[in-house]
Amino acid sequence: MRPSGRTASQIRPVTITRNFTCHAEGSVLIEFGNTKVLCNASVTEGVPRFMKGKGKGWVTAEYSMLPRATHTRSDREAARGKQGGRTLEIQRLIARSLRAAVDLKLLGENTIVVDCDVIQADGGTRTASITGACVALADALSWMRAKGILKTNPIKHMIAALSVGVYKGIAIADLEYLEDSDAETDMNVVMTDTGKFIEVQGTAEGEPFDLGELNEMLELAKNGIRELFDEQKLALN
Amino acid sequence: MRPSGRTASQIRPVTITRNFTCHAEGSVLIEFGNTKVLCNASVTEGVPRFMKGKGKGWVTAEYSMLPRATHTRSDREAARGKQGGRTLEIQRLIARSLRAAVDLKLLGENTIVVDCDVIQADGGTRTASITGACVALADALSWMRAKGILKTNPIKHMIAALSVGVYKGIAIADLEYLEDSDAETDMNVVMTDTGKFIEVQGTAEGEPFDLGELNEMLELAKNGIRELFDEQKLALN
Amino acid sequence: MRPSGRTASQIRPVTITRNFTCHAEGSVLIEFGNTKVLCNASVTEGVPRFMKGKGKGWVTAEYSMLPRATHTRSDREAARGKQGGRTLEIQRLIARSLRAAVDLKLLGENTIVVDCDVIQADGGTRTASITGACVALADALSWMRAKGILKTNPIKHMIAALSVGVYKGIAIADLEYLEDSDAETDMNVVMTDTGKFIEVQGTAEGEPFDLGELNEMLELAKNGIRELFDEQKLALN
Amino acid sequence: MRPSGRTASQIRPVTITRNFTCHAEGSVLIEFGNTKVLCNASVTEGVPRFMKGKGKGWVTAEYSMLPRATHTRSDREAARGKQGGRTLEIQRLIARSLRAAVDLKLLGENTIVVDCDVIQADGGTRTASITGACVALADALSWMRAKGILKTNPIKHMIAALSVGVYKGIAIADLEYLEDSDAETDMNVVMTDTGKFIEVQGTAEGEPFDLGELNEMLELAKNGIRELFDEQKLALN
Amino acid sequence: MRPSGRTASQIRPVTITRNFTCHAEGSVLIEFGNTKVLCNASVTEGVPRFMKGKGKGWVTAEYSMLPRATHTRSDREAARGKQGGRTLEIQRLIARSLRAAVDLKLLGENTIVVDCDVIQADGGTRTASITGACVALADALSWMRAKGILKTNPIKHMIAALSVGVYKGIAIADLEYLEDSDAETDMNVVMTDTGKFIEVQGTAEGEPFDLGELNEMLELAKNGIRELFDEQKLALN
Amino acid sequence: MRPSGRTASQIRPVTITRNFTCHAEGSVLIEFGNTKVLCNASVTEGVPRFMKGKGKGWVTAEYSMLPRATHTRSDREAARGKQGGRTLEIQRLIARSLRAAVDLKLLGENTIVVDCDVIQADGGTRTASITGACVALADALSWMRAKGILKTNPIKHMIAALSVGVYKGIAIADLEYLEDSDAETDMNVVMTDTGKFIEVQGTAEGEPFDLGELNEMLELAKNGIRELFDEQKLALN
Repeated sequence: MRPSGRTASQIRPVTITRNFTCHAEGSVLIEFGNTKVLCNASVTEGVPRFMKGKGKGWVTAEYSMLPRATHTRSDREAARGKQGGRTLEIQRLIARSLRAAVDLKLLGENTIVVDCDVIQADGGTRTASITGACVALADALSWMRAKGILKTNPIKHMIAALSVGVYKGIAIADLEYLEDSDAETDMNVVMTDTGKFIEVQGTAEGEPFDLGELNEMLELAKNGIRELFDEQKLALN
Repeated sequence: MRPSGRTASQIRPVTITRNFTCHAEGSVLIEFGNTKVLCNASVTEGVPRFMKGKGKGWVTAEYSMLPRATHTRSDREAARGKQGGRTLEIQRLIARSLRAAVDLKLLGENTIVVDCDVIQADGGTRTASITGACVALADALSWMRAKGILKTNPIKHMIAALSVGVYKGIAIADLEYLEDSDAETDMNVVMTDTGKFIEVQGTAEGEPFDLGELNEMLELAKNGIRELFDEQKLALN
Repeated sequence: MRPSGRTASQIRPVTITRNFTCHAEGSVLIEFGNTKVLCNASVTEGVPRFMKGKGKGWVTAEYSMLPRATHTRSDREAARGKQGGRTLEIQRLIARSLRAAVDLKLLGENTIVVDCDVIQADGGTRTASITGACVALADALSWMRAKGILKTNPIKHMIAALSVGVYKGIAIADLEYLEDSDAETDMNVVMTDTGKFIEVQGTAEGEPFDLGELNEMLELAKNGIRELFDEQKLALN
Repeated sequence: MRPSGRTASQIRPVTITRNFTCHAEGSVLIEFGNTKVLCNASVTEGVPRFMKGKGKGWVTAEYSMLPRATHTRSDREAARGKQGGRTLEIQRLIARSLRAAVDLKLLGENTIVVDCDVIQADGGTRTASITGACVALADALSWMRAKGILKTNPIKHMIAALSVGVYKGIAIADLEYLEDSDAETDMNVVMTDTGKFIEVQGTAEGEPFDLGELNEMLELAKNGIRELFDEQKLALN
Repeated sequence: MRPSGRTASQIRPVTITRNFTCHAEGSVLIEFGNTKVLCNASVTEGVPRFMKGKGKGWVTAEYSMLPRATHTRSDREAARGKQGGRTLEIQRLIARSLRAAVDLKLLGENTIVVDCDVIQADGGTRTASITGACVALADALSWMRAKGILKTNPIKHMIAALSVGVYKGIAIADLEYLEDSDAETDMNVVMTDTGKFIEVQGTAEGEPFDLGELNEMLELAKNGIRELFDEQKLALN
Repeated sequence: MRPSGRTASQIRPVTITRNFTCHAEGSVLIEFGNTKVLCNASVTEGVPRFMKGKGKGWVTAEYSMLPRATHTRSDREAARGKQGGRTLEIQRLIARSLRAAVDLKLLGENTIVVDCDVIQADGGTRTASITGACVALADALSWMRAKGILKTNPIKHMIAALSVGVYKGIAIADLEYLEDSDAETDMNVVMTDTGKFIEVQGTAEGEPFDLGELNEMLELAKNGIRELFDEQKLALN
């Protein structure tokens, strides 16, 4: 039934390549099938003005699609002079999720920015971003400990994310573009490796959904995300 | 336990005032306790460029807080030269929700913009906006039928929205500002009057949440939103 | 002769509602007939950079129309990414006028911003804004004295404003939209309660005007503004 | 009493140089003493969208100060990314005044933009701009008639403008920077060569003014502007 | 003498990977040592407004650095709301160079945009961009012929580019970051595969240069660029 | 052969007027035939943030065309809300060139901004700007010495610039607009009065150029620029 022939619960092959570029303190290329996102974590001393003097650090994120990451070229946001609503919404989601993974007090007055730049898009760019960004963040924190900037690891738990949805009446995991653009419901789920929820964002694109469908989607998300945590661990060892 | 003395499931008094201003085709002031939002629906002929020639209409929304709707004054977005990420995220949510309420084919090539301007904020501005905007939208559609622009009512179902959350370990409905700024989890739920979900957006602000808490919050949302539909009906009759 | 049946010198019913919203230090809804403006005065410690170290305070204003305050919807300035020339011109006028009402030295290094947001427009929004903003300002200053921030009242004199014009060859007071859009001359007058002028801005929209017409308009302004001072006093007692 | 030794009613030497640059259809350098403004009128076929199909033309203006036209350098507005409120206010005044000089129906569906760029500033830049722009406009209209684009002259009357004010308690004409920055009241007056008013904009910078002072200033303006009309005529012959 | 131990005329290893992403009509990752640029060529029907009705096509380019392509993170231009001068200067150079490679008449009324996004920077990003963009352009044109949109190949000649400079008094080819930031003179040369110049941009960063140095640099550029053409041919076969 | 009847090597009459405006520390109107640029140098204490604490000064430049400096009116960049790529490219070139003329250490922690505003354009505006800006800079530095701010003259060498090109197959100097818009190659050359190169920017607009043409153009540039240095000296004595 799925264009790719996958089963309802089957996620796409996931590849996590660390040290993809050489300058960032954490640099991860994550691939969910044909979706490819470069996640670069940058460490800087100090915190933004609104966080000063609290003895805590700050973690944030920026997200962007290269203009031709998609089937047809989109205008470059820098040329248009502003970031679109979708971009801002996604980067707020990534940043919130990453902050939920870290004890900001243990980070000290340091800032980590994770840039998620989509090289190629085929659905699920925000969930791939979160999953890859968490690995880049972990690498950046290791770098900080190696440099003696941090004494303990501020990570509270790893996080990962998956999109699920209702497509032709059936709940499926890890939607690719063809499915996503045609789904009745689309839901992004961010979880901790302790099995709890960080974000649940379900949207009825076509038809409203009921509690039964919601629970089916959450079940698929839970199982798929467990596989993502396996990939993260594999990559980090 | 709640600052206002409300029970966990108790929503604030809701007031819906139609025809609040005189120019808009639908004009509703909605109050959830101290949260007050003016929702003005404007009808215009034609559709945006990307919708042209599809024989369908368009419904969209814009959201803004007056600078002193909150405890301390925020900069005016028009003066800063751009809308913030929070604003764009909320107005995208309102617009998506309203489009889920309407059969765009029955709307013909017409556009309805619903402006949600927060006069006074005390938590739940986005859910109050959605609930009020749906009434303004219904009034604008009635105006169109009265003018002979539409022959049938394009509304598929009314929608309404409520925020729920986990506060001091307990699931509660309709968070006011004091609760919202201190909650472990914050969830916005948009539903149809047929009891289905349009949007579910849960965010762990402090602690990750589990499936049990998620279900408790959804249950509170369902019941609270049922009361909102009663208020909408009352106002429309 | 006037669409409303008013006499040439007759101003519209004026309503001044204090404490219209709950957060601002001064919050006034002013109505000149169908024109309704919400004036919120916000107090903050400190002054803008260009005023620092002078031992003086600062009073400024911002003005905006809600998109559907008018017969047809205008684009939201925050969405367009800049404030229009008309908006900037009006808020500069309001701010200048308010500063003329206050002894900035007695204000200390504090700033008051008065936001004038037009909820509904029917001509005269800038003069209603000034008249209402002065009451909001007075309330904010009272709040500062009550809090012990100020020892004396920095108000030098109350100010109020009225639009006058030449319509179908006759000088009239307090133009509503229908008159305003058809007037030969449009003039905004800001006065002190000591009977002096703060601003006189007359514009020939259709036909140039002569000194006789100018003096007739000023006479109407003087009398109308005297009534506005009565309304301000009534509201403040 | 005046820094320059001028009498209260004495305006500065006025120089009007036509054809100052070679490309514009009308190009005038106007000097009021040390204030020098280049006024270039550009003719283009067609009108802006909001004027289309009315069988009428359009006249508008833009104003700018070169960054070092003043004592200290100001930021370039193009570099800051927006025009300031003062700039917009002034160019709206110039444009309104010029439109009052022209019968837009006789102009046909053509547009004239007059760019007023201040090369050197010493007070009165907006009134010099209006006075010079009117000559550039007249030249552009002559060019149109010479080209056969227009059959009749759309000018209804010439216009000119002067600043007047109250300085050290005395009404004076044509304020230079030193006077302007220290004046109690500042008033810009735009008149027709038929002796009527187009714009009267009086502002109490320091002290409120009364009707007596207003009339004294208007009298000075009338007389000074009469001299400006003489200079315009001289330049055009 | 060179940090990398290269000889003065030795360029870095060059790698050209075609079809690096799957959506663009031409997609090339080019590497000059550690400098890595993704060049995506997008074909669209039609031309920009200023080219309409000339029976010719249009080729343009956009350039951007990912925020962490460099040693320290730069602000994202989309977030700052505008493209910097360096970015605009480089993308204008790339676009001009590409247009020099193509017969726009043979392209018909079609547009090709080549996006050059720097994944990792180590000097020479603009010359790598031009060299890679030309291959992506060639691929996009082949795609157009395969689709039957074009009958003939509009490429007049291939182009490639190299940076040369004077470093510690000696002319060297293909500067990497360490050399570039310390060079006396920096020169970017764009050539055709027929051995002619498209662009020569030499800048004295430290010391002015003389004709002898200029000629030495041009000689190095010629030889290095010949190697780049070999790499392009290799990649395209 | 040249529209003006000039010989290939003949530059246009050059006029350099110092003290053109009265406020700037250096103010020069430079004319290359019909091209007229006003160059104002402004001195301010302190340096931009990125230069702080280095014990060095900063020299920068801004460039703009008045909207009607050209045959047809261009939009005002301040009104469009951003500077175009051509503007930024040119002002970066001017600024780099001026910095090459000055020993920034001898300047102390002071900043000089040179504004180059094109009053009238007929080709060669960027080279006229550089040539005039250097004189304005020299005057500003003299002013600084006269004020006792500087003890020694930080000028290392004067600089001047000329455009050369290949037009109808022949190398020519100092292209005017008619030639420039039709040239095969266009090259801007900035030199020191010691006969060395600061910038060489050659662009094949129509046909690629070879080394022979490049050398012919450089020879023309050298000779023409020598004449410019004579004019600078004449003006400064």
